[in-house]
Amino acid sequence: MNLRELGEERLLRRLLPRLPRNSAVLAGAGDDCAVVRFAGADKLLLLKTDCVVEGIHFARDTPAKAVGWKAMARPLSDFAAMGGLPQFALITLMAPSATTAFWTTELYRGLEKAARAFKVAIVGGETSRSPGLLAISISVTGAVEKDRWISRSGGKAGDDLFVTGRLGGSLRGKHLRFTPRIAEARWLSGHFRIHAMMDLSDGLGADLPRLASASKVSFELEEGVLPRTRGCSSQEAITDGEDYELLFALAASDRIALERAWKKKFAKLPLTRIGRFIPRSAARPPKLPRGYDHFQ
Amino acid sequence: MNLRELGEERLLRRLLPRLPRNSAVLAGAGDDCAVVRFAGADKLLLLKTDCVVEGIHFARDTPAKAVGWKAMARPLSDFAAMGGLPQFALITLMAPSATTAFWTTELYRGLEKAARAFKVAIVGGETSRSPGLLAISISVTGAVEKDRWISRSGGKAGDDLFVTGRLGGSLRGKHLRFTPRIAEARWLSGHFRIHAMMDLSDGLGADLPRLASASKVSFELEEGVLPRTRGCSSQEAITDGEDYELLFALAASDRIALERAWKKKFAKLPLTRIGRFIPRSAARPPKLPRGYDHFQ
Repeated sequence: MNLRELGEERLLRRLLPRLPRNSAVLAGAGDDCAVVRFAGADKLLLLKTDCVVEGIHFARDTPAKAVGWKAMARPLSDFAAMGGLPQFALITLMAPSATTAFWTTELYRGLEKAARAFKVAIVGGETSRSPGLLAISISVTGAVEKDRWISRSGGKAGDDLFVTGRLGGSLRGKHLRFTPRIAEARWLSGHFRIHAMMDLSDGLGADLPRLASASKVSFELEEGVLPRTRGCSSQEAITDGEDYELLFALAASDRIALERAWKKKFAKLPLTRIGRFIPRSAARPPKLPRGYDHFQ
Repeated sequence: MNLRELGEERLLRRLLPRLPRNSAVLAGAGDDCAVVRFAGADKLLLLKTDCVVEGIHFARDTPAKAVGWKAMARPLSDFAAMGGLPQFALITLMAPSATTAFWTTELYRGLEKAARAFKVAIVGGETSRSPGLLAISISVTGAVEKDRWISRSGGKAGDDLFVTGRLGGSLRGKHLRFTPRIAEARWLSGHFRIHAMMDLSDGLGADLPRLASASKVSFELEEGVLPRTRGCSSQEAITDGEDYELLFALAASDRIALERAWKKKFAKLPLTRIGRFIPRSAARPPKLPRGYDHFQ
């Protein structure tokens, strides 16, 4: 059965009852807006939206459940980058009428799985017919302690630069099943003074210059030590994109304590020092192979 | 120049500096998430997402500025329906690389105009290339006092039903330049006990049964008194959709006071009693011509 035959009301009656909720949700999907409690005078609101588009972020034959996981996990990765916790998600589905009901419910199973894994309530959304292409846009609201959020702009010359995990080759599968580094980021912000952080979505070659630019510094990258996915070259580790690992800067004097504590806490996830921030005036910024540009 | 030639970074450098902000915004577009202050322990968070898709909500030759106004005004209309105030918006743009830079900046002019008109800060978003589809998804976060939010589910048998403005014929132009009824809704919730409210987006024929169903009541509609747009039939007033007017229920005993106060406050905007809620058991629910279904 496709969505034209099923109709919007019946689609929603299938999808809405099992959406993950939590006790902060006063009105979820079904009213004009979602209504939720926001606890804590010591907290700031975090807001993020992101999308996946057929033919760009997933292929027509990608399993729908994997599309759902990816669509939800991408904005959650941005919460990790801020050191915050995601809490509430809204889902916008733009789909041709010929999309099958099965595909759509599988998509929601993936969205729900990722939401549950990070204690995120799905509180509403919107469905619209699309004349051809499938796209899913997710917006997520969450919180971070006022004294604990990590911007891109706090890096200082002399800071060491670290990445979690391994880079490159994400298209072979990781781009569909990566884990947003929320637990790792919360631990980092709870135990160390992280100066600047972001998640790697467009590739180190595009993202590292952005972090440096936001922090008004330049950088040195040690290409030889980059933690590469098995079978990937340095070049691929720099340009492939969709790694969804953390890139962050902290004072060089904290390096040894960080590396020691990380190994104890996250034995299975590599943490690698890949370079450092240097003053802008020190040298011409290194020319990296470019990462992903959404329109080129 | 199109977006492929311009590139994402240059597009963002053009768009981001002039986005409307406010003093609650600590980090807007440019970091991984937006970071904002949420003031008031007496407030609840309101969350809404909505989208406009080329070929569905606007035509290829619709002026981009009007598309932008509509894309932003649609979710703001949902804030009116809850009696709340929108505060922060995120914009997701999915666009083919061949989209012109002019079209895109005009789109943002429309988005910004609607945001400014309702004191909404645009705090970030996402741009993605799309292999054909042009769509804009907007998510908005705002607030409402804990004792003042209006759901769809509080209607009672015996309540009078009202609509603002005139219904039908929206496709002739109003769907691109309607005014979200935020001021009217705030005034209503500040002066009267509104039992249930929603905004009319899919047409009275689809939306009134939804309001009744959420309130677990049935309804009587006086088709003869429907406030119709000039040149529209009753049938069109019921089925056309995209009116973006308020539909609400309040105790019949409040009717006279409401009508008198409304006329003083909003002399130019009609308020019409169009029927009432009745017990579910009283009769079979009236068969209305159906409004809009997104997949049919």
